[in-house]
Amino acid sequence: MAVTDAFLSTLRSLVGDKAVLTDASDREPYLTEERGLYRGQAPVVVRPANTAEVAAVVKACADAGISIVPQGGNTGLCGGAVSAETQVILSLGRMNKVRGVDPINFTMTVDAGCILQDLQAEADKMGCYFPLALGAQGTCQIGGNLSTNAGGINVLRYGNTRDLCLGLEVVLPDGRVWDGLRALGKDNTGYALKHLFIGGEGTLGIITGAVLKVYPGLAERQTALLAVDDINAVTALLAKARSWSGDAVTAFELVSRFAFELACRHLSGVNDPFEEAHPWYVLVEFSTSRPNADLRGLFESFLEAAFEDGIIVDGIVAESLEQTRQLWHMREGIPEAQKHEGASIKHDVAVPVSSVPEFLTRALAAVCERLPGLRPCPFGHVGDGNIHFNLTQPVGMDKDEYLALWEDMNRIVHDIVVEMKGSISAEHGVGQLKVEEIIHYKDAVEIDLMRTLKVAMDPKGIMNPGKVVNPQ
Amino acid sequence: MAVTDAFLSTLRSLVGDKAVLTDASDREPYLTEERGLYRGQAPVVVRPANTAEVAAVVKACADAGISIVPQGGNTGLCGGAVSAETQVILSLGRMNKVRGVDPINFTMTVDAGCILQDLQAEADKMGCYFPLALGAQGTCQIGGNLSTNAGGINVLRYGNTRDLCLGLEVVLPDGRVWDGLRALGKDNTGYALKHLFIGGEGTLGIITGAVLKVYPGLAERQTALLAVDDINAVTALLAKARSWSGDAVTAFELVSRFAFELACRHLSGVNDPFEEAHPWYVLVEFSTSRPNADLRGLFESFLEAAFEDGIIVDGIVAESLEQTRQLWHMREGIPEAQKHEGASIKHDVAVPVSSVPEFLTRALAAVCERLPGLRPCPFGHVGDGNIHFNLTQPVGMDKDEYLALWEDMNRIVHDIVVEMKGSISAEHGVGQLKVEEIIHYKDAVEIDLMRTLKVAMDPKGIMNPGKVVNPQ
Repeated sequence: MAVTDAFLSTLRSLVGDKAVLTDASDREPYLTEERGLYRGQAPVVVRPANTAEVAAVVKACADAGISIVPQGGNTGLCGGAVSAETQVILSLGRMNKVRGVDPINFTMTVDAGCILQDLQAEADKMGCYFPLALGAQGTCQIGGNLSTNAGGINVLRYGNTRDLCLGLEVVLPDGRVWDGLRALGKDNTGYALKHLFIGGEGTLGIITGAVLKVYPGLAERQTALLAVDDINAVTALLAKARSWSGDAVTAFELVSRFAFELACRHLSGVNDPFEEAHPWYVLVEFSTSRPNADLRGLFESFLEAAFEDGIIVDGIVAESLEQTRQLWHMREGIPEAQKHEGASIKHDVAVPVSSVPEFLTRALAAVCERLPGLRPCPFGHVGDGNIHFNLTQPVGMDKDEYLALWEDMNRIVHDIVVEMKGSISAEHGVGQLKVEEIIHYKDAVEIDLMRTLKVAMDPKGIMNPGKVVNPQ
Repeated sequence: MAVTDAFLSTLRSLVGDKAVLTDASDREPYLTEERGLYRGQAPVVVRPANTAEVAAVVKACADAGISIVPQGGNTGLCGGAVSAETQVILSLGRMNKVRGVDPINFTMTVDAGCILQDLQAEADKMGCYFPLALGAQGTCQIGGNLSTNAGGINVLRYGNTRDLCLGLEVVLPDGRVWDGLRALGKDNTGYALKHLFIGGEGTLGIITGAVLKVYPGLAERQTALLAVDDINAVTALLAKARSWSGDAVTAFELVSRFAFELACRHLSGVNDPFEEAHPWYVLVEFSTSRPNADLRGLFESFLEAAFEDGIIVDGIVAESLEQTRQLWHMREGIPEAQKHEGASIKHDVAVPVSSVPEFLTRALAAVCERLPGLRPCPFGHVGDGNIHFNLTQPVGMDKDEYLALWEDMNRIVHDIVVEMKGSISAEHGVGQLKVEEIIHYKDAVEIDLMRTLKVAMDPKGIMNPGKVVNPQ
């Protein structure tokens, strides 16, 4: 159904005039899309102030048969928050209160619209640590992180967003509120409803609040950049680091030589500290809340052993917080650095950790055979088996001509990933970008189960339709 | 529908004669129930050898309209594996192979019928550690652990069974097989289907295989029994232990004086090591995979600090593996020791960790007011906020007269738990024992969502009907 003036009046009566945006300039930030692949079209953005208002808006939309695109910080990379001209964007941005903290229970209860970085700071204030950390953390909202089950750099030790959530409050597609806002480590009183909404990308309901786990505050952190000549050695290095450290490895990031070169070339303050070039680098971090743990001694003994084993061939240990920041700036700036080199065809894939070397070897050979001159720029969270297999265009090639190969390259890379029992969307989700791709690859039984759930929970099909799964 | 001779012939044709048990003596172990609260009635037990046979049996049952009770080790405490005379028991016991291990990926892929203790040993062989541990581990099967999302003694550090599972293979209620057997740390390609089957108690499908997470093998473990005079100090002690140790606290078990007395009275080799009696004891364990971590020094410094703070008033540290075993024997033997003192009314509840002292204070006062002479015997996993609030009958009271108070006591305890935003079934599940109880306490929206899922996924209602949720 179309959004009529009468319906806009209904919305205004529910949330107030100021919370219903219809001017083009007001709507603009909600219609852009991170990668420029899509353009939102919604004629209206509604900004409710609380859960009751979200429920009232959803009920009005359900009654009118108008579909809803829930939106957090609008930083998603798969078009999950992109709207059509018949749709209403429901933005959670005004719901940004921390509802409560409990340092003894190691939890905080928060509104869905809280900015991730603010929650990291809130945990700090509790003397605790909230480990979810990713590039968009200054803008993205926890509701979006939950809806997409965001990953990031600390998944190896602390899990995905799903693993950091004890309870949820959700507005269902008919406007009822499910209060699952429990702060419990154990609760076996029925189906795990929260796990449907986490990673559901707003297609089954709208997350309005959450109970999040926090951890003891970190007392010490050690960071190093290591040079590795043999990709096959990287996964053994990780396994060794986990055992050696008492599972204190909190980050283990792979950077290819080309990605490293781009970072050195285009990011301020990033330089190559090594005398020679190496095909692969690993950014490794140990951290602990234990005071006086001599983490530095442990870290150095681990590095020495790995050096003696011939697994690492060179390395630098950060000697200050500033050096730690620089190392992370290098790693996190890779996507930005890539932009200076023309177009990029991107993949967010995962395979078992033990299969990462084989995946890289096979996939690099296959894409370079397809397009001589291609400049592969793989990097990512090898500790989770998650590689951002990004491919920078050949020098001098026409950008559009290159991007026309997107599906072709996807097919080559994703075929290898699926053959290796991997995932074609490790942490970015499905959105609309990968709806057809998962239908192509997934077992029909799984797609059918997903459709069954979608139809059962959103029979009118008004919740972010066309995202994740397309009911048939 | 009734199980006819013709249907038995069909079953025999699918799995072979030997795998279809109809003799009363053969069926007996599948019909008993741990606590003696129920008695199974199924005229037949089917024991398929592999996933294809499970699928064939389920399809035959679906076609014939005969309902199925999936059964693992039959150690559940809520009647979830108890059958009626019109039902078929499908036992997973013959599916007990480890399908593969991957020490670099820290995973093992297993059949659902593997005994938990065998999987702990399998992880050991990999140089790794599988942390799921609970009283029934010598008999229970991992498929049952997954279906009930079992808890146990290491949840504080490693999570529930749910958190130890990366992928599942499931036979659906129509006999199709869902292959979600992925060994991935990250996979955001759609709804989290596995989380419906985990904790689903066999009402949505039958788990036939799983990919489990393992951890680096433990290098050192330190265990102590601490005496605490003030229950309010216990949760602060835990928070301190988590920070102090770098989150190396792997167990933190509360034992009341009465539970401790019963253990000393009825368990061989258990003695009170302290000069004075104390109202509460804590069994605390630190462990790490880090070699040469000086965990002992850390442990002692922690205990000294807690002693100086006045939080703990006495304590003994285990000096040998044998002493560690004795301490755990005391803790794990409490339910057994209780049996010597007559009937027990039991509760498996959770509240936020920070609320445990308030819960105990309120609940103890309430039940003792209801029945003077009652001997409360609380103990449990305070690190998860999970208390086994068991109530031993007054001395000399008639057993049946006492057990007639079961629902009365449940109401008193569960009212307090729910008021404190807790769970009335922390780790044992719903089964049939608590179906009405969760309807009594849960929000109607939540029960409705659960029914919607049950009907959508099992439209014929043949999968363990009457357990978890009763469709209306």
